[in-house]
Amino acid sequence: MSTPRKRATIADIAHRVGVSKAAVSFALNDRPGVSAELRDRVLAVAAELRYRPNSAALALGRSRVDVIGLVINRPARTLGTEAFFPELMAGIQAGLSETHTGLQTLVVSSLEEELAAYSTWQATQRVDGVIVVDPRRDDARIALLAELDLPAVQIGSHPSTDAAIPSVWIDDHAVATALFETLFDLGHRRVAHVTGPLDFEHTELRRSALSECARRYDAPPPMSIETDYSAEQSAEATRALLGGDERPTALVYDNDVMALAGLRVAQELGVPVPAAVSVASFDDSIAMRLVRPSITALTRDTYALGELAARTLMEVIGSDAPVASVAAAPPALSARESTAPANAST
Amino acid sequence: MSTPRKRATIADIAHRVGVSKAAVSFALNDRPGVSAELRDRVLAVAAELRYRPNSAALALGRSRVDVIGLVINRPARTLGTEAFFPELMAGIQAGLSETHTGLQTLVVSSLEEELAAYSTWQATQRVDGVIVVDPRRDDARIALLAELDLPAVQIGSHPSTDAAIPSVWIDDHAVATALFETLFDLGHRRVAHVTGPLDFEHTELRRSALSECARRYDAPPPMSIETDYSAEQSAEATRALLGGDERPTALVYDNDVMALAGLRVAQELGVPVPAAVSVASFDDSIAMRLVRPSITALTRDTYALGELAARTLMEVIGSDAPVASVAAAPPALSARESTAPANAST
Repeated sequence: MSTPRKRATIADIAHRVGVSKAAVSFALNDRPGVSAELRDRVLAVAAELRYRPNSAALALGRSRVDVIGLVINRPARTLGTEAFFPELMAGIQAGLSETHTGLQTLVVSSLEEELAAYSTWQATQRVDGVIVVDPRRDDARIALLAELDLPAVQIGSHPSTDAAIPSVWIDDHAVATALFETLFDLGHRRVAHVTGPLDFEHTELRRSALSECARRYDAPPPMSIETDYSAEQSAEATRALLGGDERPTALVYDNDVMALAGLRVAQELGVPVPAAVSVASFDDSIAMRLVRPSITALTRDTYALGELAARTLMEVIGSDAPVASVAAAPPALSARESTAPANAST
Repeated sequence: MSTPRKRATIADIAHRVGVSKAAVSFALNDRPGVSAELRDRVLAVAAELRYRPNSAALALGRSRVDVIGLVINRPARTLGTEAFFPELMAGIQAGLSETHTGLQTLVVSSLEEELAAYSTWQATQRVDGVIVVDPRRDDARIALLAELDLPAVQIGSHPSTDAAIPSVWIDDHAVATALFETLFDLGHRRVAHVTGPLDFEHTELRRSALSECARRYDAPPPMSIETDYSAEQSAEATRALLGGDERPTALVYDNDVMALAGLRVAQELGVPVPAAVSVASFDDSIAMRLVRPSITALTRDTYALGELAARTLMEVIGSDAPVASVAAAPPALSARESTAPANAST
């Protein structure tokens, strides 16, 4: 879905930087004889102009580079706290293994850096395609990738609305509904939700699933507190929820680290889990199994998700026709010691 | 340190596979017109013969590919349980960021696959160099990398003995001694160690550090149980240690997952931590901070380690002279609720 915007050429970059077209070409192709400083300027301008190599020239002049890219937009120093990315990467590599294709990863700390990475990768022909995670509303990345003609697959919550960029998707609304219904069926009516950032699509889908459940079960409007996924903000939210007048009988956390932090706060406050309050997590991890009480969680096959995304991307790269979005296996609920009927609660 | 073994040529590969030299060259350079099957055979034979492109031809004919490689030898589906690799990767990328160099990662499940990856990467010129982790005694990887002339840096426990492949190192013996001495200084004499596989150099260094400590403090010979780093084997080891006649008063685990599993077993058996037994871990993680009691652990700056390794590798790639091994910052002990003086113990 390219926009009709005029396509940038090597001449445009040369003009803007004030050097010859040959110098730009050498810089883009990483040939010797170009200073690091000039190369940086050429790449910056190429990214800014959304330069992409001419596809006819590409078809004639080069074969694939046999590398796909994954940009991870997370604070680099906290990357180790989430099991999602290493598991996804391992799955992606399994999905690539038959095609002799490698995986290049890049950790960035802002959406702007992520957009710049896609532009640079395409301008310098470093990857054949990319896998995009954490879809947002009005996602600038999808618009850019379409404009760049860079083959892509997104991991999301529904079939893609952009035929050129299919999604590998899990129905996060249905998954969240099933988790919340389990708690309502145990008799809980005051269910609170400690969420991640609401500009992620799946966060909003979970929040609306809880509101709808509460209405169906004639429960009061549910409490929800938005956080940045950190243990610190989860602890603060949990203290507020357990210290209030209308104390919830069930706490649901958007990830495993926040559930651990919430459990610790409940224990410190002397609120027994699950006797007085049940605890559940939207993400599983080995700590969810090993902590006491062990924490009820949705167990995802992130490895299989990565494998499916990689295979779908290879189809997109190898095909001129649009590739259909494909549903991935939904997570399964692992019921553990941290959840119990509400009639056991205060 | 190349061995004098005769160097394989494209002609050797062509002869062995039974095709023309041109076909081999096309397959190695991933050019169109070669079947996937033939390409696989050529790559397999190239790896077997340890083919590496002629360096004079390389110097004339191509510039760097501006990608370095990291092979992760771990069961892919359990990769998410270790914070080490994502943190290391993020640090490596920070160390590469000024040089426009990317990181390609490959997850394998055996030493043989790891060796094959280095051979294939070098034969097909996919990376400019590699970072090697988890050094072993008589490490076959170091010998292969030297033979392939593939620039490399190892992350290890001491300065490298191979001048061509420097190490970025932490003195694991000194670090382990400091951790064990902390426990002996708290009055513990029966200190048990639940280890990872003993063919890793750092595992053996930790074990010998404990034996030496015990002798210095006139303590009985320490118990140690070797495991595969899993929660399951740690739980089994902990049950054996706490159920024996000479129950230890301190348990030290080689990683965070095993420490969590051990803590849970102690709690299930009704052995209070730290009143009856202290618990400590050689690896830190967010769960170590959040579990109750929180677990005393060595906090590593794996991000900085990756950054230093990447910078050192870029020096090796850019220099004809040997690059010196470099010491990384040692981990710091984070004392938490799980350790206490032994006189508080039974």
